[in-house]
Amino acid sequence: MGKRVALVLAGCGVFDGSEIHEASAALVHLSRGGAEVKIFAPNTEQRDVVNHLKGSPTEEKRNVLVESARLARGNIQDLAELKASEFDAVIFPGGFGVAKNLCSWAVDGKDCTVNEHVNSTLQAFHSAKKPIGLCCISPVLAAKVFPGCEVTVGQDKDVDGRFPDAETASAIVELGCKHICKNVNESHVDKANKIVTTCAFMCKAPLHEIFDGIGTMVQEVLKLA
Amino acid sequence: MGKRVALVLAGCGVFDGSEIHEASAALVHLSRGGAEVKIFAPNTEQRDVVNHLKGSPTEEKRNVLVESARLARGNIQDLAELKASEFDAVIFPGGFGVAKNLCSWAVDGKDCTVNEHVNSTLQAFHSAKKPIGLCCISPVLAAKVFPGCEVTVGQDKDVDGRFPDAETASAIVELGCKHICKNVNESHVDKANKIVTTCAFMCKAPLHEIFDGIGTMVQEVLKLA
Repeated sequence: MGKRVALVLAGCGVFDGSEIHEASAALVHLSRGGAEVKIFAPNTEQRDVVNHLKGSPTEEKRNVLVESARLARGNIQDLAELKASEFDAVIFPGGFGVAKNLCSWAVDGKDCTVNEHVNSTLQAFHSAKKPIGLCCISPVLAAKVFPGCEVTVGQDKDVDGRFPDAETASAIVELGCKHICKNVNESHVDKANKIVTTCAFMCKAPLHEIFDGIGTMVQEVLKLA
Repeated sequence: MGKRVALVLAGCGVFDGSEIHEASAALVHLSRGGAEVKIFAPNTEQRDVVNHLKGSPTEEKRNVLVESARLARGNIQDLAELKASEFDAVIFPGGFGVAKNLCSWAVDGKDCTVNEHVNSTLQAFHSAKKPIGLCCISPVLAAKVFPGCEVTVGQDKDVDGRFPDAETASAIVELGCKHICKNVNESHVDKANKIVTTCAFMCKAPLHEIFDGIGTMVQEVLKLA
């Protein structure tokens, strides 16, 4: 029997939803690891809809669950229906949608609120000592919900211009967490909390390096599951 | 210097655009192969907008280039601007968007018309003896534009229920082309025409097998480039 893994999405597109290549990479590695995956997203309106060609918000309204269904090829459920008892692990890909639709980090930073179903999902897996995998900006969810945990969002300085959002590491420290500096092809395992993180697109790196980094995160999650 | 590869998208989402995981897989393999990639899509309205949660069309209007920009993280150009002279190869991921927005195969089958910029792009790379990579349903573009060419869309019979759209192979033969049966982890190279094809999601297979099949297609394209 493969490990049963829930993947939680935040829309479809880096600027207002889940980062597409991170979500796809996680699914490829989960498939190779023999996991049985079910995909979830909150049934809520997106904070905004960004025209990804222009990089600017539009007047459109879109639903997080409906847009996430594009990544899930239609095979997706409302996050409100996720029962942690039916899974061995949960994984959150990144993208601005995490900071806009799963919590309010994009607007409020470390003072953000977390979507109630995202919060209860994280709490349920953590209480049951089941692993939680996060990449890119998603580690801020763990930093907010589990003060004292260890996560990585890459480097805490903008080394060689590759980590333009390095100040995220400082915000994580201000939340009482420990930020661990890691490269894009690595992940960090907080063994006490069973939280596995990798920086993914927080690093300006070639796509295959991000893909491989997410691979290490998925493999660590499956090992802990 | 890496090979210069143009990737042509048809939207963002399997039912009305490019198949997301096929596009992402192609980009991961191109990155690993050291290619310099530029992404293009036609600046035209989508044939339809499908609610991927319900699987049914909506009243919405979306633009192929704008939605494709989600897959390209904003870094995309109008297909009308693509100059074959600036590239060594071109790749078309699959998805229903290919059969709806790049040609009218979804409605007209083998009697389809092909978008003028898609047609001129294919003709330009073919005339210059530069390789063309296609996966999933995209091989019908080659079958329509280059009668007599060899392509695969997987198997020509629905073996073990894994090839529900096997009749596509018959339509390709009716267009005067040769259909080569291949498994999901393989690709076919038409050496005379420098056309490389793999079936991808035309086969019901685990995602990592589709990913690997697209890898063989990308590698053959880079070898021919």
